[in-house]
Formats: sequence, structure tokens, C-alpha cells
Amino acid sequence: MKGYMIFTGTELLLGKTLNTNSQLLTSIFAELGIDIYKIVTVGDNTSRIISALKEVPKDVEIVFLNGGLGPTEDDLTKEALIEYLGSKTVYDQLTLDKIIKRVGEKALPGDMKVAEIPEGAIAFYNDAGVAPGSVVMSNGKHYFLTPGPPEELCVLMKNKIIPYLKENMLGKEKIYSKILKFAGIGESKAEDKIRDLIRANNPSVAPTIKDGEIHFRITAKGENKLELEDMVIQVSKKIIERLEDYYFGEDDESLESLVAGQLTAKGLKIAVAESCTGGLLSNTFTNIPGSSEFFDRAYITYSNRAKIEELSVSTSTLEQYGAVSENTAIEMAEGVFKKTNVDLAISITGIAGPAGGTIDKPVGLVYIAFKYKEQISVVTRIFSGSRLEIKNKVVKFILFEIFRKLKED
Amino acid sequence: MKGYMIFTGTELLLGKTLNTNSQLLTSIFAELGIDIYKIVTVGDNTSRIISALKEVPKDVEIVFLNGGLGPTEDDLTKEALIEYLGSKTVYDQLTLDKIIKRVGEKALPGDMKVAEIPEGAIAFYNDAGVAPGSVVMSNGKHYFLTPGPPEELCVLMKNKIIPYLKENMLGKEKIYSKILKFAGIGESKAEDKIRDLIRANNPSVAPTIKDGEIHFRITAKGENKLELEDMVIQVSKKIIERLEDYYFGEDDESLESLVAGQLTAKGLKIAVAESCTGGLLSNTFTNIPGSSEFFDRAYITYSNRAKIEELSVSTSTLEQYGAVSENTAIEMAEGVFKKTNVDLAISITGIAGPAGGTIDKPVGLVYIAFKYKEQISVVTRIFSGSRLEIKNKVVKFILFEIFRKLKED
Repeated sequence: MKGYMIFTGTELLLGKTLNTNSQLLTSIFAELGIDIYKIVTVGDNTSRIISALKEVPKDVEIVFLNGGLGPTEDDLTKEALIEYLGSKTVYDQLTLDKIIKRVGEKALPGDMKVAEIPEGAIAFYNDAGVAPGSVVMSNGKHYFLTPGPPEELCVLMKNKIIPYLKENMLGKEKIYSKILKFAGIGESKAEDKIRDLIRANNPSVAPTIKDGEIHFRITAKGENKLELEDMVIQVSKKIIERLEDYYFGEDDESLESLVAGQLTAKGLKIAVAESCTGGLLSNTFTNIPGSSEFFDRAYITYSNRAKIEELSVSTSTLEQYGAVSENTAIEMAEGVFKKTNVDLAISITGIAGPAGGTIDKPVGLVYIAFKYKEQISVVTRIFSGSRLEIKNKVVKFILFEIFRKLKED
Repeated sequence: MKGYMIFTGTELLLGKTLNTNSQLLTSIFAELGIDIYKIVTVGDNTSRIISALKEVPKDVEIVFLNGGLGPTEDDLTKEALIEYLGSKTVYDQLTLDKIIKRVGEKALPGDMKVAEIPEGAIAFYNDAGVAPGSVVMSNGKHYFLTPGPPEELCVLMKNKIIPYLKENMLGKEKIYSKILKFAGIGESKAEDKIRDLIRANNPSVAPTIKDGEIHFRITAKGENKLELEDMVIQVSKKIIERLEDYYFGEDDESLESLVAGQLTAKGLKIAVAESCTGGLLSNTFTNIPGSSEFFDRAYITYSNRAKIEELSVSTSTLEQYGAVSENTAIEMAEGVFKKTNVDLAISITGIAGPAGGTIDKPVGLVYIAFKYKEQISVVTRIFSGSRLEIKNKVVKFILFEIFRKLKED
């Protein structure tokens, strides 16, 4: 099946935005076996969008438009498609209800416009935003309209459009895939251990790196669903066996939600003292719905005075060893533990940079202490990257440490 | 001057590669005042490349091809262009010398092929790789061939192609643009106030929404740089005048870094008590290098017990009004202020959802208290969206409130 993609957005022609949607969509289509013939990017301009639509070859069955569904005057993709098809607009009632619920009956024309879809189209409700996606059939082609914001597109593809394509448009060849997730190991080291499997074709094994994690996607193609599942399971077993120490989950499972699940299941409470990560660990935990079950409190003790006043870190420790030291990390964790009476207290102190590094204590040096049921342990690590990358890597490292600790426990 | 870009590479159609070259090139062209009409991406396939070349409109003067100049069999861009132009190949002697120096006189045909350029083309020697760029004139157009590897492209643009364009092709038309940033106002409401300016052509005004902010890009085209700057400034003034209450900065300025600048300049210290935002405000502040100058500490008091123990919120307040209430917000801010002796104490309590809402206190309801130099104020707002969106909107709202407060101060 042939597909054609049209991205709209003047910002893409001006270099203001990196088009990450293109890679997301093309990788999804490749997996579904849809052959993308061409990708076209045009500005927010009705006649240019229409002329792009006119150029789509006859044998293309899927025309996938992305961007330009918002409320502003330069959101013109839907209008251009409707003009091209000689169709008209109708409201998607679910979206209209949502908008009126949000902004009240006095919704402005711009707000209302977002709820419009081409007549005869099937709407895909947008769980992550407002503008719905839609698909309309015409000239023997399926025209898809999809929102530009990457997080909205991602959710819409996963929840609505991929299932729609699979159910309605794709032939006998089926695809089954699974993602295995690993942390605490470098990319090349992980790949070295399963190189033979990466080289194989069906199932294929494709690595991706994301926020300090390594994901392997195992994909099998064939006609028998049970057979495909079995092929994927066999390869998954091999991969997990070889990388057992670093494996934490699959598909939708995130490290933080797994840790949250462990903590909740075991009825454990945690509290945190963050210095260099400045709230990122707490924020990561509290992004999880229901985190109040296990997350008691945190101290973001950025200044020395805060470390002394809140966590009873001793002045002499700070003077003798410095705020970034094993001793300070231990006293911070002990301080949290004593004050809060939780089961697990975690402390972090380090140098996130870009300034503040020395030869002895370089940027990226971080001390992390865990006080778990009377036992204390400290880890020292040097992380690389920008300030934000270092903060992210520290948090990922801690989550994986907790995950391992609680799995063994 | 109109430009047209053609990217070649099957990997781009399969989602294997993120096309960062596109953003690099479009931002360069925007700065040079070359108006990119359209971007097309096709696979490594001679007939598809040729059909993309055929579609280039008459009035385009620059056709910029990227990728497919390497030694392998699927590097076909140059061959396709030459076939399309009915031209032939010649060797670029400098590149040929370099190849022979590297691999010896026994260079393989694939190696040699890299040194080929269209007859009559000007070669751009590749300082960062082997395959040279080139430009050839035909049909009143300039066809550029450029290497795909991003680092090679980057060096080639900087050292060779930008100087070439400036010297030989760019006429008098220049471009000047500026971005104005606003917060605290809805998108359609903001646009309604400047609709006449959005409808105008030169300068053009283009809105974009980003993380709860609205950005307007004002772009002027013309021949006299000073005149362009003046045109943009005049429109900027009008926009700021009409949206004065919501304006915070321009171009590279971010709300958090502006607030950080205000706090540092005034020598103010802040401390924070977060409940429903769970560390996001602290994390946003501490993402800024040098935030230890003004950020003293934070309490992430998720549990009621933490609110009582850390911030001296009274049990009776929690019982009578609940943790999500104006009274609790005030006591939290007072608690922080008393304990830390900072200049500005901020507290946040609310319901981030998805669970926990009631009819009286729906998901999204948030109380925010500011204690600034002995004065306390509380704001009540209902934010919409997912848990993460609500957290983000609360933080953006607070940053903008601080920004306004300190601007007046």
C-alpha cells in the first residue's frame, strides 16, 4: 500500500521547528508495511497545500496530512483539503462539547473552528489536546488530517489511527512487535551482547536510545498471529537472558511507574532530599497519578543553610568535605530519614554545571545516598552532558537503583 | 528569491533518520532571505528524483538537493540530476587527487564516482568529508548538490555555499524578523486584539503556541535593512501596546530566565512549598544555570503530615477547609516565609488529577499564595488538561505572576 505525506507549517520552512513528526510517522508506516512514496512540506498557505494535494499520484491510497488544525488564522490544512475535495465542514460533536465545557457557551470562532472536520469524515478524538484527527475517503484515497503538536500526534497515532489502519486498511500480512526496555548499560555494550539477533531479519530487532534507556523493538511479520507472537517471545527471552541485569520492563511500562508500583505494593513510603537535581526526582515521582500513596515529601536544599536547617547536616562536614561529598550525602539521607520516618530516604548532592566544577570535583560528579530500613549506602558517579542531561541521568540512575533494590527485596 | 529543497534518502522515508539537515538549511535560507517554497523528500530512486525535479515551479531560482552523493549504489542524486538536465559528468580534480592520495591509484569505481560533478558545475571542496558539493546553472535555475552527512553539510554551508550565495546570487532583498512572547492570555483572545496586523502582509505577523505561551513572529522583507528593522519595530510596538498586560519578552528570552534575571538583579531570595506541582516549579528554577544565586530551598509537602510538620499548617485548618484551600495555601506560604527568611515565599496546593476531584473542588483547582516582603496574596484558578498539563500551566502561571510583580516593583 502506497502512502504520501504532506506536512504543513511555515515554521518548518523557516527552520524554526525540527520536524520530529516525520520520523515518528515514517517509522510507524514502515512497521505497518505502508510504503511512503514521498514527503512534502509546504507553508501555511491554502493554494500551496492544494497544489501539493493535486500532485499526489493516482496509485497512492493513503494521503497523510500533518499540522495546521489549530484555532489560528494560519491553521489552514483542513480548510485546504475541504476546498480541494469540494466538500464542506461539519462539527465533531465530542470535540465541540469538550470546547464548550472548557471555555463556556461564548466560545470564539477560533475555538469552534478546531472542532470542525470534513463532512463524511471519521473523527479521531484527541485525548492529549483539542483538535481531533480525522479520515475521509475520496478519489479512492484515504485522506488523514492529524494535529501538529508531537505529543498529541503520538497519542492519537497509538490510540486511534494505528488501530484504525490495522482494522480497516491493511491486508493479510500481520505484524506483531514488542519493546523491551533496559537501563544502566551503555548502548554499544548492550548491542554487542545481542549482535546476532540484531542482524536477523524476521523477527527484526531495532535498538533506540531514550533518556538514558535502551529499548529494543522486536518485530515479526507473517500471516499467523499466534506464530508471530511466539517468534517475538522466543527472541525476547534470548535478549532478556543475555541482558538480565539491565532489564526492567516492556512496551508501555516506564521505570518510574514500575517503581511506583513496587512502592505501593510493598506499602513503602519515601522521602527525598535533592540538591543538584533541584526537584526533578520529586517531579518525576509526582507525575505519576496516585503518587501520594507512597511519596511523603521532599526537601530541595539548594543552599548550605537549607541543608543545615532542614536536614541537620553538620557545619563541620560542609566545611571539611564540602556540600558535594559522600559525607554530606549520608547526612542528608540520615536527616530525611530521622525527620520523616519513611521507609526509604534518598539524598542527592552533586555538580550539575555548567559552572562549579574543579579538577577534584568535576561537573557531573554526584553522590547519592539511600537509607532503606536502617541501612545506608552511598553511590558515587560521574555523569556527562549538559546541566539538564546530567539531572535526567541522575534521576534515571536512581530509579533503576530503587527498582533493583526492591526487586531483590 | 524562491528556493525549493529536495532531500533524497530511503532512510528518511523509513523513519531510520531524523532529518536535522532540513532545519539547518531552512534556517540558513530564512536568514539569507531566500523564500523556501516547498520541501520534498523522496527515496533513493532515479525516476522519483527526476519526477521531483520536474515538479519544480518556473519561478524558483534555487533548487537545493541534499543527500545521495556517496559511493554506494543507492547514492543516485547526482546521476538523476545529470540525466534530468541532459548533461554529463566530469571529475572534480581536487577531490579526485584527495581520493587517490587516500586509497591509492587502485581506487574502486565507487570511490572515483564520488569525485564526479555535473559538467559546467562549480565544485565546493568538502573539508569535512570526501563528496564535494556543487552548483550548476540550467533552465534559469541554480541546482545545488550537497552531501547528506550533517557535519559535512554544516561545514560546507558555512565555508563554501553561504559565501557563494551571498556573493553571486543574493540580490537586494533582505529579511528581518523578531518574535514577541506573551503569557496569561488565551490564543484566540490574543489574536482577536491584533487581527488587523495578522492580516497584513509586510511585515507579516504569525502566531504560534508553545507550552502555554503565545509567540508572534513579525517578519519584514525589503531592500533596506534599517527600514526593515523600523517596520518590525513599529508593528512590535502596536502589538505590545494592545497586549501590554501579557507581554514578557522576545526572541531567545524565556519566562523562567527573565524571572531568574529579575530575582538576581534585585538580590532577592525565594523559597517554595509545592503540593500538587510536586517539584516542577523548583525543577524549572533549578534548570537555570546559576539558580543557586536566588533559589534557597523548597518543600515538596505532598502529605498532610508533611504540611503540618514542615510548614506548621494547623491541623484545624486542614480539617476545616481541607488541604486544597485558600487557608492552607496561606499557611503554607507563611510557614515557608517564617522558616527560611527569604524575600519571596510561594506555596501551591491543588488537585492535579486525574483522580481526587469533587463537585466543589474539581480537578485543576489550584490555590497559589505569594508572601512577598510581609505582604500575602492568594490566587485561585481552575486549570484544564491532563495531570502533566495542569502542573505545567500552574508553573507557567506562577512564573508570569512573579514576572509581573517584580516588574512593577
